Amino acid sequence: MRAWAGQQAVGGAVVVVLVVGGLWWAVSQPTPPPECGASLASLKDTLVRAIREEAQRRDTTHSHLPLIYVITPTYARPEQIPELTRLGQTLMGVPRVHWVVAEDAHVSNMRVVTYLKHTGLPHTYLLTPMPEEYRNQTMQPKGVANRNGGLAWVRARATEGVVFFADDDNAYDLRLFEEMRYTSRVSMWPVGLIIGSGVSTPVLRNGRFVGWYDAWIGGRTFPVDMAGFAVSVEFLLQRPDALMPFKPGHEEDGFLRSLGISQSDIEFKAAECTQIYVWHTQTKKNYPYSRQILSPKFDGTNLRVLQRDIMLQPG
Amino acid sequence: MRAWAGQQAVGGAVVVVLVVGGLWWAVSQPTPPPECGASLASLKDTLVRAIREEAQRRDTTHSHLPLIYVITPTYARPEQIPELTRLGQTLMGVPRVHWVVAEDAHVSNMRVVTYLKHTGLPHTYLLTPMPEEYRNQTMQPKGVANRNGGLAWVRARATEGVVFFADDDNAYDLRLFEEMRYTSRVSMWPVGLIIGSGVSTPVLRNGRFVGWYDAWIGGRTFPVDMAGFAVSVEFLLQRPDALMPFKPGHEEDGFLRSLGISQSDIEFKAAECTQIYVWHTQTKKNYPYSRQILSPKFDGTNLRVLQRDIMLQPG
Repeated sequence: MRAWAGQQAVGGAVVVVLVVGGLWWAVSQPTPPPECGASLASLKDTLVRAIREEAQRRDTTHSHLPLIYVITPTYARPEQIPELTRLGQTLMGVPRVHWVVAEDAHVSNMRVVTYLKHTGLPHTYLLTPMPEEYRNQTMQPKGVANRNGGLAWVRARATEGVVFFADDDNAYDLRLFEEMRYTSRVSMWPVGLIIGSGVSTPVLRNGRFVGWYDAWIGGRTFPVDMAGFAVSVEFLLQRPDALMPFKPGHEEDGFLRSLGISQSDIEFKAAECTQIYVWHTQTKKNYPYSRQILSPKFDGTNLRVLQRDIMLQPG
Repeated sequence: MRAWAGQQAVGGAVVVVLVVGGLWWAVSQPTPPPECGASLASLKDTLVRAIREEAQRRDTTHSHLPLIYVITPTYARPEQIPELTRLGQTLMGVPRVHWVVAEDAHVSNMRVVTYLKHTGLPHTYLLTPMPEEYRNQTMQPKGVANRNGGLAWVRARATEGVVFFADDDNAYDLRLFEEMRYTSRVSMWPVGLIIGSGVSTPVLRNGRFVGWYDAWIGGRTFPVDMAGFAVSVEFLLQRPDALMPFKPGHEEDGFLRSLGISQSDIEFKAAECTQIYVWHTQTKKNYPYSRQILSPKFDGTNLRVLQRDIMLQPG
């Protein structure tokens, strides 16, 4: 076994050297189109990273990789566990991730706590209720207390890595996480299924930022979706006052502005914002169900166990 | 050991040839910048896949497990790729699976074909259009031609294993697949988020079948959801005439009745039907998007690549 592992390490090293050498040779050949030079360098980095990660996949530790802190706001509803299941199983495919699940609740939701334990993922469960003053607003700032709670936890515990806000109802391609992993300050990429425009993205010409594309610009400095950016932990720690505002529709912009960034701080990922690796999917709401399951004729059956997982109409 | 080292050397050589060849190709393309980014992304994808497949090829530890044939009906819509991404990444966590994706189309959908290749999963892509006579019905028998096409493919290729119909919009806990893997004839379990009742399930008392729980029984012999059962391949092969009927609302019941099963043929899984490992989640539909992305002011930008992945309103 040890010999095999050794051989694999050597084999992996040979592959990496050959690939890096090959790429270096290719990049150093005369007359690649100048626009492609930077892309090739970035491709080289990505490939070397992919090979290294694949070689390490059987190892018990990926300790050389920057850790991704995924902050997920959530709240109790019939779709909560299925949504967290889809996201949790996605994160199982991502090495070096810590899942911070922050719930809008005053008391632990044992269904969520139990599921998180089941995943085997490194995780933290936080109670981050929305302040009472916002509960009666027509437009509620949903998820803000949760994300700020997650940020506070990261600030207190982490010294390096990257922070990403992942709502539990979006769809994430695994490739997204490798795009964000090496973020120096703030990275951005396109988000699909945006109502009205189909996509929300920075607009780049010859790899340089020229504007934003989004259905609703709304006077925002950074008209981006919550799933469209990640922030380096080091960078976040240098901005101790950065916070998400309780201002519906302006959560992303307010947070990014509180980081005090300018355009030159933004790294454009996903092949210069030409690939969609995350979508703003929305799941149809289900409403509390019929109480028929409580009928005495079902006493002594499996329905007495299943009913605990069903949100019923008030009796 | 020597064979393994040899295989790895060959694999390494293949990777290097791919990298150098791919780069030479990429560099020699006279492409404008956004397309350059996209080509590089596609090259990166190919290489990462080659590396991942090579790593998987060495993993033979699951060959003793019965194979699960997952038949997924699908059709082109804005949510299609995100939905298939969520399901595909779920299946990446399931050993010994073959994904049969059957599309309601006459011509291959290259977005789907490309994504399936990317997953590295063993898969088959089928074109299974709905017969024209059903297209104008108010209640269309969606997914029936797809599932029957998948069944025909399984009948022609498989001799053992298990068949499961997995719509692309449901949510699946990985545990579900281990519940169904050892199915002798037909296995069943609860399905969550069923409109009206919250759950659809066989009702068991002391482990014995006593009835069905579902929002709509509708005179069906087997009032179950499409995601609520699996069938052994051997059992299916013994019933060469079993088919799903083109009868909206009666697809599951019609198929199970065509298998000629009785209650004693059913194996009740998921801890005697007390656990929910699959949910009938539904994703909100998105409609074709604004054509603003086509504005000439975006010529030469990344939007010219992204627009290919957006379903636009007719011009």
